[in-house]
Amino acid sequence: MSDLPKRIVIEEEGPREGFQIEPGPVAPADKVRLIEALAETGLERIACVSYVNPRRVPSMADAEQVAAAIRQKPGVRYSALFLNRQGLERAMAGPLSVAGTMGITASDTFARKNLGKSVEDAVVEQRGSIALLKERGVKIDAGYVMGAFGCNYEGELSTATILQRVATVLAEAEIAGVTLNTLKLTDAMGWATPASIQRLIGSIREKWPDLEITLHLHDTRGTGLASAYAGLRMGVRKFDASVGGLGGCPFAATKGAAGNICTEDFAFMCEEMGVETGLDLDALVECARLAESIVGHPLPGHVMRGGTHTAVRAATR
Amino acid sequence: MSDLPKRIVIEEEGPREGFQIEPGPVAPADKVRLIEALAETGLERIACVSYVNPRRVPSMADAEQVAAAIRQKPGVRYSALFLNRQGLERAMAGPLSVAGTMGITASDTFARKNLGKSVEDAVVEQRGSIALLKERGVKIDAGYVMGAFGCNYEGELSTATILQRVATVLAEAEIAGVTLNTLKLTDAMGWATPASIQRLIGSIREKWPDLEITLHLHDTRGTGLASAYAGLRMGVRKFDASVGGLGGCPFAATKGAAGNICTEDFAFMCEEMGVETGLDLDALVECARLAESIVGHPLPGHVMRGGTHTAVRAATR
Repeated sequence: MSDLPKRIVIEEEGPREGFQIEPGPVAPADKVRLIEALAETGLERIACVSYVNPRRVPSMADAEQVAAAIRQKPGVRYSALFLNRQGLERAMAGPLSVAGTMGITASDTFARKNLGKSVEDAVVEQRGSIALLKERGVKIDAGYVMGAFGCNYEGELSTATILQRVATVLAEAEIAGVTLNTLKLTDAMGWATPASIQRLIGSIREKWPDLEITLHLHDTRGTGLASAYAGLRMGVRKFDASVGGLGGCPFAATKGAAGNICTEDFAFMCEEMGVETGLDLDALVECARLAESIVGHPLPGHVMRGGTHTAVRAATR
Repeated sequence: MSDLPKRIVIEEEGPREGFQIEPGPVAPADKVRLIEALAETGLERIACVSYVNPRRVPSMADAEQVAAAIRQKPGVRYSALFLNRQGLERAMAGPLSVAGTMGITASDTFARKNLGKSVEDAVVEQRGSIALLKERGVKIDAGYVMGAFGCNYEGELSTATILQRVATVLAEAEIAGVTLNTLKLTDAMGWATPASIQRLIGSIREKWPDLEITLHLHDTRGTGLASAYAGLRMGVRKFDASVGGLGGCPFAATKGAAGNICTEDFAFMCEEMGVETGLDLDALVECARLAESIVGHPLPGHVMRGGTHTAVRAATR
């Protein structure tokens, strides 16, 4: 009866995306505590740290320390982000999973702010990382387009521009001799709407029907879960999310930089609609409360205040 | 190309729904200031006060004073809520618009908490209000079902139960000799999901295809805009919303009682998708900031922090 996927996978981005925007320092032990609690909720993928320039993102200066301290639970993939060859080398030297991804930024201005170089230069520079990944035997199978739905510096980005960016990523994959199975569309600046999700995914599918689309959405303007729902309707089965709604990109030029869609709110919506997430909602709510106590200010998650339906269902059935 | 309505109407509920939950007192002059600012944003309907028992809702004790002080702008309908004959008599004695509505509560437990009586007793008692409305020449054309998507006390409510409630409202309309053109589904306890919106509206339409469905959604669990989007896809063209996300129902048994979907976030999403609202987004954001300064704590609205796209579009076009 439903036109939604039967089961989806949520990748937790809170520890990585979330803590990078915090104004005050977060103790490495607190980061580890949250990561370990998240691993008990049924999450199978947790993005833990970014190996980026500590002068640009001071809160990630402890990446090595955090990565080393996590007691890894079998069956959970703890991952690290890197944006260039230097970061990749740090990631490879550490104990976390290194994702075999390659991608492109949609907006040139955002590329210069976020990566410190033009879209073209970043593509060329990426070849070094790809060579290193291949050399170390990391399978490269995931592509991405960053900021695919719009840009706080450049405004709208046409569907034609994004299709061109996807074509570039696929051409680079061909040059590297790898096959990309998935393509992640990210929206750090929170421009996506249900309509643009439907339109862009539809256009990409038309040209590349075998590419599985995944979504990394931010709830900057309140439309995050509506856009994620539109993604579900388009058959998307992999989403990034952030516990409590932690986070935001420090270079997105948004005064109130907002985090990813909230893990427990999104998981709640999915489960209520019969879309399985494999997650323990009440355990996730506890993690959101832990995250809130760690950062010391309210997080935007709703279910942690509004409550799940577990208690009322237990009482009325 | 789009399957969404070309134009919708948003009724502002912030002053009425919003202020009733505030723990501290809100000065009548501040309420009036917000109402008058909202009237400058393009909103054509603003719910201003509730004529309810001041012992149960102390923040509405000033309803008469607020209603009298509003400088009404032509073309804007300033309305008042009433829940029983006594409230209706107060509303009729005042300068605000009295809506000709009749309805029912879905859950018996919620009816007892919210109205102080059973569903059946409330239906019978409502006949007095209907008689008075008719006597005074107020056209009764709008029905409603309160708490149509689930109950924090009773849990799920079956579609069959809700269809039965709708049938009762329509039977009462027939007894009263009036025709209901619209049926508002309200969700003060925040149980709606995109899937239940689609399912319930679909079921009601099947039985009563000529009844226009309108939605009053709360964002208790973060699914508000996703559910509103599902409503848009079902062709719903009238929505209640609350500036800044102000408010919440004091009797909904939600610890963090959440307000209606946020007016400016919803209007932003609609406009971005090409659904006209007739509203000035930046003026609405200013109203949300005013509401925040009046209540003295952060409100949940996103666009007032994330920003509209007005400036970047002006800069890049």
